[in-house]
Amino acid sequence: MAKAKNILFIMFDQLRWDYLSCYGHPHLETPHIDRLAAMGVRFTRAYIQSPICGASRMSTYTGRYVHSHGASWNNIPLKVGEMTMGDHLRRAGMDCWLVGKTHMAADAEGMARLGLEPDSIIGARVAECGFDVFERDDGMLPEGPDGSYDPDGAKEYNKYLQSKGYDSDNPWHDFANSALDDDGNVLSGWFLKNSPMAANIEESDSETPYMTRRGMEFIEQAGDAPWCLHLSYIKPHWPYIVPEPYCDMYGPNQVLPPVRAQAEFDNAHPVLKAFMTTKIGESFSQQHVREAVIPAYMGLIKQCDDQMGVLFDWLEKTGRMEDTMIVLTSDHGDYLGDHWMGEKTFFHDTSTKVPLIIYDPSEQADATRGTTCDALVESIDLAPTFVELAGAKPADHILEGESLMPILHGSARATKRDYVICEYDYSGSPLSPKLNVDVRDAVMFMIATEEWKLIHCEGGYRPILFDLRNDPDELTDLGDSPDHQPIIDQMYDKLFAWARRPSQRTTRSKDQLIAMRGKSGRKGIVLGVYDEDDASPETTVKYRGRKAPHWTNRHGNPVRTSDD
Amino acid sequence: MAKAKNILFIMFDQLRWDYLSCYGHPHLETPHIDRLAAMGVRFTRAYIQSPICGASRMSTYTGRYVHSHGASWNNIPLKVGEMTMGDHLRRAGMDCWLVGKTHMAADAEGMARLGLEPDSIIGARVAECGFDVFERDDGMLPEGPDGSYDPDGAKEYNKYLQSKGYDSDNPWHDFANSALDDDGNVLSGWFLKNSPMAANIEESDSETPYMTRRGMEFIEQAGDAPWCLHLSYIKPHWPYIVPEPYCDMYGPNQVLPPVRAQAEFDNAHPVLKAFMTTKIGESFSQQHVREAVIPAYMGLIKQCDDQMGVLFDWLEKTGRMEDTMIVLTSDHGDYLGDHWMGEKTFFHDTSTKVPLIIYDPSEQADATRGTTCDALVESIDLAPTFVELAGAKPADHILEGESLMPILHGSARATKRDYVICEYDYSGSPLSPKLNVDVRDAVMFMIATEEWKLIHCEGGYRPILFDLRNDPDELTDLGDSPDHQPIIDQMYDKLFAWARRPSQRTTRSKDQLIAMRGKSGRKGIVLGVYDEDDASPETTVKYRGRKAPHWTNRHGNPVRTSDD
Repeated sequence: MAKAKNILFIMFDQLRWDYLSCYGHPHLETPHIDRLAAMGVRFTRAYIQSPICGASRMSTYTGRYVHSHGASWNNIPLKVGEMTMGDHLRRAGMDCWLVGKTHMAADAEGMARLGLEPDSIIGARVAECGFDVFERDDGMLPEGPDGSYDPDGAKEYNKYLQSKGYDSDNPWHDFANSALDDDGNVLSGWFLKNSPMAANIEESDSETPYMTRRGMEFIEQAGDAPWCLHLSYIKPHWPYIVPEPYCDMYGPNQVLPPVRAQAEFDNAHPVLKAFMTTKIGESFSQQHVREAVIPAYMGLIKQCDDQMGVLFDWLEKTGRMEDTMIVLTSDHGDYLGDHWMGEKTFFHDTSTKVPLIIYDPSEQADATRGTTCDALVESIDLAPTFVELAGAKPADHILEGESLMPILHGSARATKRDYVICEYDYSGSPLSPKLNVDVRDAVMFMIATEEWKLIHCEGGYRPILFDLRNDPDELTDLGDSPDHQPIIDQMYDKLFAWARRPSQRTTRSKDQLIAMRGKSGRKGIVLGVYDEDDASPETTVKYRGRKAPHWTNRHGNPVRTSDD
Repeated sequence: MAKAKNILFIMFDQLRWDYLSCYGHPHLETPHIDRLAAMGVRFTRAYIQSPICGASRMSTYTGRYVHSHGASWNNIPLKVGEMTMGDHLRRAGMDCWLVGKTHMAADAEGMARLGLEPDSIIGARVAECGFDVFERDDGMLPEGPDGSYDPDGAKEYNKYLQSKGYDSDNPWHDFANSALDDDGNVLSGWFLKNSPMAANIEESDSETPYMTRRGMEFIEQAGDAPWCLHLSYIKPHWPYIVPEPYCDMYGPNQVLPPVRAQAEFDNAHPVLKAFMTTKIGESFSQQHVREAVIPAYMGLIKQCDDQMGVLFDWLEKTGRMEDTMIVLTSDHGDYLGDHWMGEKTFFHDTSTKVPLIIYDPSEQADATRGTTCDALVESIDLAPTFVELAGAKPADHILEGESLMPILHGSARATKRDYVICEYDYSGSPLSPKLNVDVRDAVMFMIATEEWKLIHCEGGYRPILFDLRNDPDELTDLGDSPDHQPIIDQMYDKLFAWARRPSQRTTRSKDQLIAMRGKSGRKGIVLGVYDEDDASPETTVKYRGRKAPHWTNRHGNPVRTSDD
């Protein structure tokens, strides 16, 4: 009987929920991912906790909201002491390994304060967000006048490319993420104009196949003890450029029209407008930019899907398909010009909703194979799901999500929540001074039910409201509609209740708190008891019938004692 | 010129704000504490963050709200990673030592996870809430059928008593906190009926003088490097019993009538009613209990005041009065029958407001000597005040209070806040099942401005509201008054804003976040740039004019390179 023993936790980066054929894309066929969906459960309302890599991932890895763990933007370190998926899983007897990207920034100051050496086992795990590292590759080695955003990015991969003869100090850039013109000039994938060209690299040497092989290499050597492998791809994240044959598979004809309305732009809420009018927003609002980028983005996804085919075939061949839960998701979406925006970093579904497919080989999951689930799901649900699979009870005083196991096994149709939360912190972005919003206030919260989505921007702004039932494309902001004030109030009430949750009471479980009740009385604390005869003789027995030994008080009078 | 170099941070336990003559008590003369007030600033609206020892202290020591640090009740461990006063001060070059009580519960599980040994320097500090321990004495060694609430409580003090001939396995109980009857029986101070009797101990051997001497011993050996000493007394906390001569100083004639109203009891909000009708509430609502307890409580305070006289005289003699800031406060109050309650654990001023006096010897503080300050102050303000005194900038992304230095130095008349917050978690108390309230919901928030106090109880209850201007005794709950709905809404708005604060974004300061703005661009991240000619040549120079070396593509065609 098949039973999940391991977890293969696959994450793509910046993969929109609707750019897979199983999620309805009309031109992009992704048969291998679709096949996984046919073998498992496909979630249609899976939300991430922040529309940016670092913060979203820290929530997924800790199982906690951004407001709870505080690592609210890329490179804001996850504070030492925060528990991760790895901590919870190891406690449950399952190893937890990384191949690929986490976007983890270590809390070097906190580690130094606690004397944690980065090269110790504990220190390395703290620095790597709880994972043991088979290979870390955050997927980028950009370079600018002030150095590199991530000097160690793509380190092993670059070594691999160099060993294969890609002769450059930064083959990640010059080959994997650039094209070549007829004069031998490197055409950088950073410039969107170059996106339609082929990356100057053998397809099998490009990042996605490389990472797939690294994942298989991990699994091959993993042994019999249960493991969780986070196989975390950088793609289809920018730079938007893909090698042949994928670069030629799609063209402007397959580029869907942008989901947007002129009134949406003209009447935009000031914070939303600020995002629309960044260079990114203005660029992706132009059709020629979309037509350059989107075919490459689709090609990157097609390559990802083909690699899933390679991986799933290999898992089948090696028997791992029988004992491995496979989870496939993304850390956020990509606007691609929808709503007059590019990138992610705002709260439309195109950015905050992600594909999520879970295949559980266990017999108990047979009933749900090939089904979809429309329940409100959050990426923080994965950690408790994994802990339950590992055989332990999720620590629900720490983990803020819900295990999806009941849904996977058909014993529940929905999660217990009636809303999802997503957050974004732009205090470290130039938009904060542009809007003249203080560091304290440069944060936003999204709360969404199945029907409504409210976005609250700190700093004294009115809310943004979308009617998800009647306006699923989120084109009409009802945040200033008097008719919708009752809905706005209800949504704010929910957000308020959420904000008051005891998210930091992480050192005592529910059971431990219940066990504390009344305990101090039986350990000698006597409160409000006037006369010992009014008190339970059992609990106060230690204070009765005691005889004081001989002792002379300060007046020199002998005090009577039991010896007298 | 006198200048504060050290900090003597004196905390009493369960000392009501109004049981000192400088705060207006009509019968209890406390000339020594009054003298400190005459030399410094006396704060009239100083609130603690939780009306219970452990949670209140964890807020004072971390400088953070309970909702931020999570140690929301006695013996809920402060999670590893939380920074304390000691961490901040040592970074500023000031040692931070403990003599007395903290009520710290170490996060043993978190420490084990991070490999922190309790006997290492770092581990010991983490386990002791950031203090270096000269002597820890949580002030109690109660005993019950299930053992002791605090097996190590009063450990050194008990040894001291034994060395002085107090012959018992628990002289803390049998002598310091018990009387003796004519037949040589120990009359336990745990039973309130015994409160009027003299504790069976030489006054100079009782806890308060002992702890004063230990504080002086610390200071004597402290050397010239700047120090902060937390001299933390257990008294006037229960057991309510005091040795001669203090036990005879006050009697029923000096017991003030209880602040309460019959209607207050009859119409009480269900949660408040549950607190009133505990054994403690019922007991302290009886006049004979009050008349037994309050004179002893007053005697304990009188003894504390006399010890302050001893201490201050000694500081003067040794020159420390010239270079030591002295802070005197309490961790919460005591109902003593007011509002039909005993103990603390609710939100009337009698419990949540504390005395706070700060004496700064520096010349800059001369202008404010002997003044009072009515500003809204919280106990979390002490940590940043201390850090500023130590010469550093308080880390306001971690510390949630405000430095009081501007008030002490006369450059400000008030804090910047317009409300204070206090919280209570009763999930580990029998009241939670009594009210049939879940662990998640057994929490309450108080928010108070100068005019209003709103108490929000989770679990679907209506709020409690007091009009502090017109009803300073807080006898009339306006929480169900339709006329006050606008006030209630305003108070909830403030609480909501507070609950959304980014309290966990502790790994990056405001300055660091501001410095991050736009930085990624200069480190090679290029976003939304279509054509390299549209981009800043400076930031994208690394991606221009690169020549690819010779490499043969997968079709076997030589790729043109710069060598061609």
